[in-house]
Amino acid sequence: MQVSIACTDHNLKRGNGDHSKQSATSPNVVNQARAKFRTVAIIARSFGSFTPRHISLKESTGKHTGMKYRNLGKSGLRVSCLGLEQLMTIAYESGVNLFDTAEVYAGVCHLLCFFFPSYRRSSFVITTKLYWGGKAETERGLSRKHIIEGLKGSLQRMQLEYVDVVFANRPDSNTPMEEIVRAMTYVINQGMAMYWGTSRWTAMEIMEAYSVARQFNLIPPVCEQAEYHLFQREKVEVQLPELYHKIGVGAMTWSPLACGIITGKYENGIPESSRASMKSYQWLKEKIISEDGRKQQAKLKELNHIAEKLGCTLPQLAVGKTLLSCIMTQEKRNIFLLSDNFLSTHLTPSFVLPKMTSHVVSEIDHILGNRPYSKRDYRS
Amino acid sequence: MQVSIACTDHNLKRGNGDHSKQSATSPNVVNQARAKFRTVAIIARSFGSFTPRHISLKESTGKHTGMKYRNLGKSGLRVSCLGLEQLMTIAYESGVNLFDTAEVYAGVCHLLCFFFPSYRRSSFVITTKLYWGGKAETERGLSRKHIIEGLKGSLQRMQLEYVDVVFANRPDSNTPMEEIVRAMTYVINQGMAMYWGTSRWTAMEIMEAYSVARQFNLIPPVCEQAEYHLFQREKVEVQLPELYHKIGVGAMTWSPLACGIITGKYENGIPESSRASMKSYQWLKEKIISEDGRKQQAKLKELNHIAEKLGCTLPQLAVGKTLLSCIMTQEKRNIFLLSDNFLSTHLTPSFVLPKMTSHVVSEIDHILGNRPYSKRDYRS
Amino acid sequence: MQVSIACTDHNLKRGNGDHSKQSATSPNVVNQARAKFRTVAIIARSFGSFTPRHISLKESTGKHTGMKYRNLGKSGLRVSCLGLEQLMTIAYESGVNLFDTAEVYAGVCHLLCFFFPSYRRSSFVITTKLYWGGKAETERGLSRKHIIEGLKGSLQRMQLEYVDVVFANRPDSNTPMEEIVRAMTYVINQGMAMYWGTSRWTAMEIMEAYSVARQFNLIPPVCEQAEYHLFQREKVEVQLPELYHKIGVGAMTWSPLACGIITGKYENGIPESSRASMKSYQWLKEKIISEDGRKQQAKLKELNHIAEKLGCTLPQLAVGKTLLSCIMTQEKRNIFLLSDNFLSTHLTPSFVLPKMTSHVVSEIDHILGNRPYSKRDYRS
Amino acid sequence: MQVSIACTDHNLKRGNGDHSKQSATSPNVVNQARAKFRTVAIIARSFGSFTPRHISLKESTGKHTGMKYRNLGKSGLRVSCLGLEQLMTIAYESGVNLFDTAEVYAGVCHLLCFFFPSYRRSSFVITTKLYWGGKAETERGLSRKHIIEGLKGSLQRMQLEYVDVVFANRPDSNTPMEEIVRAMTYVINQGMAMYWGTSRWTAMEIMEAYSVARQFNLIPPVCEQAEYHLFQREKVEVQLPELYHKIGVGAMTWSPLACGIITGKYENGIPESSRASMKSYQWLKEKIISEDGRKQQAKLKELNHIAEKLGCTLPQLAVGKTLLSCIMTQEKRNIFLLSDNFLSTHLTPSFVLPKMTSHVVSEIDHILGNRPYSKRDYRS
Repeated sequence: MQVSIACTDHNLKRGNGDHSKQSATSPNVVNQARAKFRTVAIIARSFGSFTPRHISLKESTGKHTGMKYRNLGKSGLRVSCLGLEQLMTIAYESGVNLFDTAEVYAGVCHLLCFFFPSYRRSSFVITTKLYWGGKAETERGLSRKHIIEGLKGSLQRMQLEYVDVVFANRPDSNTPMEEIVRAMTYVINQGMAMYWGTSRWTAMEIMEAYSVARQFNLIPPVCEQAEYHLFQREKVEVQLPELYHKIGVGAMTWSPLACGIITGKYENGIPESSRASMKSYQWLKEKIISEDGRKQQAKLKELNHIAEKLGCTLPQLAVGKTLLSCIMTQEKRNIFLLSDNFLSTHLTPSFVLPKMTSHVVSEIDHILGNRPYSKRDYRS
Repeated sequence: MQVSIACTDHNLKRGNGDHSKQSATSPNVVNQARAKFRTVAIIARSFGSFTPRHISLKESTGKHTGMKYRNLGKSGLRVSCLGLEQLMTIAYESGVNLFDTAEVYAGVCHLLCFFFPSYRRSSFVITTKLYWGGKAETERGLSRKHIIEGLKGSLQRMQLEYVDVVFANRPDSNTPMEEIVRAMTYVINQGMAMYWGTSRWTAMEIMEAYSVARQFNLIPPVCEQAEYHLFQREKVEVQLPELYHKIGVGAMTWSPLACGIITGKYENGIPESSRASMKSYQWLKEKIISEDGRKQQAKLKELNHIAEKLGCTLPQLAVGKTLLSCIMTQEKRNIFLLSDNFLSTHLTPSFVLPKMTSHVVSEIDHILGNRPYSKRDYRS
Repeated sequence: MQVSIACTDHNLKRGNGDHSKQSATSPNVVNQARAKFRTVAIIARSFGSFTPRHISLKESTGKHTGMKYRNLGKSGLRVSCLGLEQLMTIAYESGVNLFDTAEVYAGVCHLLCFFFPSYRRSSFVITTKLYWGGKAETERGLSRKHIIEGLKGSLQRMQLEYVDVVFANRPDSNTPMEEIVRAMTYVINQGMAMYWGTSRWTAMEIMEAYSVARQFNLIPPVCEQAEYHLFQREKVEVQLPELYHKIGVGAMTWSPLACGIITGKYENGIPESSRASMKSYQWLKEKIISEDGRKQQAKLKELNHIAEKLGCTLPQLAVGKTLLSCIMTQEKRNIFLLSDNFLSTHLTPSFVLPKMTSHVVSEIDHILGNRPYSKRDYRS
Repeated sequence: MQVSIACTDHNLKRGNGDHSKQSATSPNVVNQARAKFRTVAIIARSFGSFTPRHISLKESTGKHTGMKYRNLGKSGLRVSCLGLEQLMTIAYESGVNLFDTAEVYAGVCHLLCFFFPSYRRSSFVITTKLYWGGKAETERGLSRKHIIEGLKGSLQRMQLEYVDVVFANRPDSNTPMEEIVRAMTYVINQGMAMYWGTSRWTAMEIMEAYSVARQFNLIPPVCEQAEYHLFQREKVEVQLPELYHKIGVGAMTWSPLACGIITGKYENGIPESSRASMKSYQWLKEKIISEDGRKQQAKLKELNHIAEKLGCTLPQLAVGKTLLSCIMTQEKRNIFLLSDNFLSTHLTPSFVLPKMTSHVVSEIDHILGNRPYSKRDYRS
């Protein structure tokens, strides 16, 4: 599941119940797409209501949905705070099966058409990610050729004129940074993308990209996609905020439940129908049954007690905590409320966040024992 | 017919009363346009006569019309000295209803076709303004996406290949200046615009745009659109001339009658059919009935005496005074004559300007009490 | 007559005799074109023979024609040493009427198709000149808009995808040099031109263009078109060689017979059918009958004696002398031979040049009394 | 079938003899192509198998073929280590006539379609070379016009949207380096090429191109094509490795058998049917029968003894030695094995390389007496 989307109640409300028409549509398209490529999309939809101009645009809230919107990095692009990837992950782990992910597999455009019949390209933020472990030699690595051909192919499959952000998945130490940044600048200047970002790059690699962009007057990246959950905090809570303050590179986080580990379902081993029991997730299984994995399960047990006290589930607590950290580190705000619509009831800790007092947060940090410190604490 | 045009639906909406023809033409086109966008256009039309090459191009005068043309900022683009916005505003306030504004609502191109049947794109200067208080989140602010998508949409609606100047309305402090200037340079390099300008930006913000353009070898703005009338003089009379001399950024002014305040019609309160009596102009009403507003009315009363002495109306005096200042501060010329054709008879103080001796100007300045001073007086 | 062409015997040989088909073609196209625009083209045609690679390319000679080719400025573009404009001017003044200039008026493409049926765009060098004394205000001056629109129009009329060199006719002090050089760089980067040049600019203005190009990493001009004949020598013989050595800007010269003055036909006043007797050439008449003009006629009388001694006509001597100077100042070569084909017999001093010993040259210089000196004499 | 291909009509023309099928296929297409242009193509084909991402990409090996892939210079483009030019040359000299070269004559695309029915542009690396000894003056030298027109023509003939690398054949001292590098950057920015390289340029000329690219923020070359065989080693073994380490410019080598000299067939003079006996190869004949040529034959005789000891032919030894040097100097690896597939059995010394111990290599170097030394020995 690769599509990462952020959307408002408009889109999601319709997702309840019988999707008979939908599943009838085009199974082979779905399979083709599934077999061929993986796409990531973040979609921010308009509110449908007019916001007076004199309101500060720093962060704004959807009238009907309570959805928050912020600028992507220091760029001018405004995206919703929660991505569909996150929503869908939470949904999946919480037992929700509302999303017809088959549609998702068949590409973002299908999804858009389904959810948003009055589709207007200018109101969506659609991203794609360039994977570079392709079959052909030339499709491996972030060469100029692969960046250009890869993005072209992606646009063709999605039937889009451009994406808003094209992400370079994993750094490629075999391609000079100058070539990568030149190629990214090229696709932006050709109108194939509005911005470019990185995915799973280290802070040092992002700094190098930025510095090369400055050296040759090219366009620097705006955003890093990073894994972020209770057990992996250093990069998102310390390093990326520093990057944001220094060079304006923002963060998008993924895997809030650590591939399901944080649901607590692996407390007593690997259940038969779980992801970790699948052949292709052997690495996940090994991770879980390792010593570190067992320690994590113990911590989750403790966290579960807190969740019970707050009247929510463990996943809800986990997502709530990471959301809160994101807000605090990146924007120095401390309230994040999702509206009371269908999805949030099931997935989002809208009623949890207000209860997350500094005391509760300290308690969680204490249990996890991995709160990272930075010289300059952006969270205070 | 030699006119220079700038229009928004602001000015045109006020066509209250008997515009029966107008609503008859194409009401839904009109409404669509009104609902969807606001466009500003400045159109300078050729003279139809050949001007010998050895004539200095600094300022030139239309053979049949007496219309003056000057370079926009320090750029090479030559535009007429009076915009349609100004003409239409004066026309409106003076009771003229000659313009078939319905055509205007349907977009600049319709207007062009109406006024100038032998339309040649290369002889017109057409501008557009990017508003960024749109409905969708992504349509708010001056992000790269919005600048590009906004201009594309504008060109599509106007059915133009390019505009001559694209203005960024209001500064956007949430988008980095580098992103704005890069996007403006992009649309120029894509052939979607010839130049770019600012609207309602402070001198400091314009300087920042210029400095960013210099830092990254991008294209700097050529022009600022600023409010300018008898009660608001500092920016246009002092700051913008300084900018012009330092970095070549020119000025276009709008609102010569201060939304109708300077017509004098609010002398005895808010008349029923006036703009300030309308719901959406509550802010105007408040402005008029404030203490400052009442002081302004008193000054207008005094100015009316001068107008009477010169044999013109108050609006004509006001426009004449601002035109004169523009000429003196920006181009150091002191004669501005519109020809005796239809429009000028009704709207422009062609017979007024010659009477505006330095004595009369001093008298007006004395009444207004707001003549701004600069270290280097560009007007002398 | 604006088309300036350099071509080999291939094209020209066919020019003898009955052009019945040709004049039948399209007289109104011709007239339209004549009325609308003036185009300058330089065309260098391939030799039709293979030149071994190890030959130095500095200057080469056509196998069948003896035509010389050199690089344009320090650019890599190779053009023939004599332009059609020169050929046609000489032809005209010598009474030759072989060229069907009507075809020329109708645009370079028509001419190309006529002369070179197996037309291949890549083997021709076609230039255009941007005049900026147009009717419309926006068509006056070298604004970005006019450069782009002007060139677009020119390409459309000539039905060409691009020109090789676009010349900016006369400098425009009202447009910032940065805007001019940016616009020229834009049209080159858009594929509308390969190079850009100047026409009638001073050495200082060309240096400014070059310096602005260096400052903003834009593309500098490659060539200046300058008037050059026996009575106007300073710029081409001293200033331009300096520019060439310093910044690689080459020279193209025009008017080798000074609008016919050097033919000697004005020796005894203005003949009835001559150019100077025409209304639109009043300035030429005045020039000829001025005191300076009469002194020139006296000198031409003396030069005629030398021509007689060499066994050629005065125009042939004049062209020979200027050709020789061009060769000596720019390329430090001293032999320039046109082949013995039709045109050269009539127009070019192929048999004259070898007779132009340093003694003869000194004699001519002595009569003219205007040999310019430069600190660094590029001609020695 | 995993091959890497580079071909010119040089190699292919020699298909003298019984290519009956070939002349049957499409003789006029063949002749047209032969007469019109010469194209070089390097094609790297995908493995058809998925390579796990965690494998280092420095050098990788095809699953089924054993073909090695490396990055081109320091760019991100991955190409196979052996080119078809090499393969075909070896094949030819070894008596192999397996390749249907007629297809090659008709252009690379035909070849691609023939070899790889499931042709996907993104998985091939196709290059072209700009020759500049054309018929027309404008087609001689590396002017901006010729680079652009030349590449356009090449793309059209090959019916390709772009090439991966466009090579500038031989340096052109008559065109400023700035013009060459700007034009190469232009074609890359226009999407007509991904990278550009040089062919037969000296190290100094490549450095100049690189330095000009840095000065004007243009795109530097990625690769030099150089002649490389047992009798010409200095450039590839010493100079290019230095360039690679300093500025990332890689090397492609050609002529591994020195136009057939190294096959040993000229041991006893010029055989009747050999290339050197042909009229157009007079220079080759002269080279062979010169004193240097006869010394080379003597050395080849000695090398033949070593080949016999290793159980391979002289060409196999020669290719093996050069391959080994390439590997050692450029990548500091010392094993190069082609898989046991059809091609390698016939053409490549897969079983030879392991036998090439340092002792054997020293012996060869001793016989040749031309091992070049560099201050910094990149081969150790």
